[in-house]
Amino acid sequence: MKIAVDAMGGDNAPKAIVEGVVLAANEFKDMEFILYGKEEAIKPYLSNETNIRIVHTDEKIESEDDPIRSIRRKKNASMVLAAQAVKNKEADALFSAGNTGALLTAGLLIIGRIKGIDRPGLLVTLPVITDSEKGFNLMDVGANADSKPENIHQYAVLGSEYAKLVQGIKKPTVGLLNNGTEENKGNDLTKRAYQLLKNEPMIHFIGNVEARDILSGVADVVVTDGFTGNAVLKTIEGTAMSMMKLLKSAVYDNGTKAKLGGLLLKDSLSEMKDVLDYSKHGGSVLFGIKAPVVKTHGSTGKEAVYFTIKQIHEMLASKVIDDLVTHFEAKQDEGI
Amino acid sequence: MKIAVDAMGGDNAPKAIVEGVVLAANEFKDMEFILYGKEEAIKPYLSNETNIRIVHTDEKIESEDDPIRSIRRKKNASMVLAAQAVKNKEADALFSAGNTGALLTAGLLIIGRIKGIDRPGLLVTLPVITDSEKGFNLMDVGANADSKPENIHQYAVLGSEYAKLVQGIKKPTVGLLNNGTEENKGNDLTKRAYQLLKNEPMIHFIGNVEARDILSGVADVVVTDGFTGNAVLKTIEGTAMSMMKLLKSAVYDNGTKAKLGGLLLKDSLSEMKDVLDYSKHGGSVLFGIKAPVVKTHGSTGKEAVYFTIKQIHEMLASKVIDDLVTHFEAKQDEGI
Repeated sequence: MKIAVDAMGGDNAPKAIVEGVVLAANEFKDMEFILYGKEEAIKPYLSNETNIRIVHTDEKIESEDDPIRSIRRKKNASMVLAAQAVKNKEADALFSAGNTGALLTAGLLIIGRIKGIDRPGLLVTLPVITDSEKGFNLMDVGANADSKPENIHQYAVLGSEYAKLVQGIKKPTVGLLNNGTEENKGNDLTKRAYQLLKNEPMIHFIGNVEARDILSGVADVVVTDGFTGNAVLKTIEGTAMSMMKLLKSAVYDNGTKAKLGGLLLKDSLSEMKDVLDYSKHGGSVLFGIKAPVVKTHGSTGKEAVYFTIKQIHEMLASKVIDDLVTHFEAKQDEGI
Repeated sequence: MKIAVDAMGGDNAPKAIVEGVVLAANEFKDMEFILYGKEEAIKPYLSNETNIRIVHTDEKIESEDDPIRSIRRKKNASMVLAAQAVKNKEADALFSAGNTGALLTAGLLIIGRIKGIDRPGLLVTLPVITDSEKGFNLMDVGANADSKPENIHQYAVLGSEYAKLVQGIKKPTVGLLNNGTEENKGNDLTKRAYQLLKNEPMIHFIGNVEARDILSGVADVVVTDGFTGNAVLKTIEGTAMSMMKLLKSAVYDNGTKAKLGGLLLKDSLSEMKDVLDYSKHGGSVLFGIKAPVVKTHGSTGKEAVYFTIKQIHEMLASKVIDDLVTHFEAKQDEGI
């Protein structure tokens, strides 16, 4: 397995990226890494790993760059070269912590969609709060702000195969995010998507699910349009962050007694933080592209990079993309 | 001020409703209450309040009733009679903890919209987590699953006037919930709504806001379509609930040391719970109707009923609805 790594993307690049790659390279001896970026900035973080090499380039895409324009014009940017390598089959997957819009564009325009997929979507695995070992998949969290019922239908098939092949869930449940659980609930989009999902034999559709219940693991895969998915993901992050702040102030701004209580609770509160940290499930997959294209947060540390590469390893080992290519090509042929 | 109360709506009716009304009736001597419902079930919770009277009816709308059909057919349901009283000017406002869909329908079909408002929306005031005294208004949280840019534009004017007149915020900031803060971000709906908001002189529009930041009070009024607003509200509830569960298990499932820590933190953790409880800001206002129509959670207790009636008191005292009637009528006249 060869992974093309945009070593210059994200706030902590190249340090966190390269350190994370080194962690993964030492564990996964069946993986090779090509790091695209400034050689002199990358080298200090490498020892003599035999499965990592550098392809030098000075150019990179900045976080504030316009996605489409930068992908088209910055021909030698680390992200563009890494995507080209995947396109040319010199690498099997693309990893970046850089500009999300640019990565979506690079995946779409350079590597290309699986035949039969209209719009790739972003899939993230979030923690099931009541069961620290479990996660659920939310898709699309923001690749397409305007989605059609057919897109949501495809997300359901993609997400379900991901849960099955990559996460090893035998019969993953798929729920449609909606404003009520009854079949007749929803807006025009979800009402039409419901009918498509209900009639899809490839998935185990359990009907509508509400945002209130997704963190309790009501479904293994929750599908929604990219606008709502983005809002839900950011609401989870914002609420969790605000509550941790509130908890901190409950401990530190309430006198000695509370501080002592916090001290006694330190270990269990740090475990609580661990449950909420979903980077151990990997990054966001731009799913529907011909190869794994995976992104971590720009502010990511080396552990998150390591977990995301582990996720790519599992995606490649499971051959989930090959499976999807076969499925959607067969569907297209039926259509003719 | 006369309030028509659906005494039979909600899981804890009539007990919680009547007890909450009694609390309010004792404080607000300028209010009169007409309780619609089963006389023999209501009476036990009353003393000899002179500003509360009962209008007996045996019929009521159940939580699982179809909204439109039940409003049309159950002519003597407590909620329908209460709405009729407002329509006939025997009461100035409608309060219920019953079936939300039915209440929306009763507001819309029986009391009617403000002239010039296409679609009333649901407004809730949520806590700003970092400042326990402050709240922000989110609208629409679910009255209309499919919204147009013009609806969001009207929510902005409604929400802003609410913040100004009812909450006393001099120059309330209005933000459009979106998937990024830049002007060009969004789906088709938010891009078009942005242009309308930007050109509305009646509001102080601060641009796009992200779901991640709304609980920190980034804007006094956050407007969005009813589908997204509903998802965001339920995500906040679900995340907060899951985290409280996580916190509880951190305290109770981690041995004696953690339990002792929890004991020392008890007071500050209960303060934390208070911050999250947004019922002190009142219920959800079906805003855009000719009179205040306000709903609390079905599982509500007497305190939430009390706070919602306080909110109705403030709405009536501020004459916010009269103000909006004048504004939208004038706008309609301009349109001619």
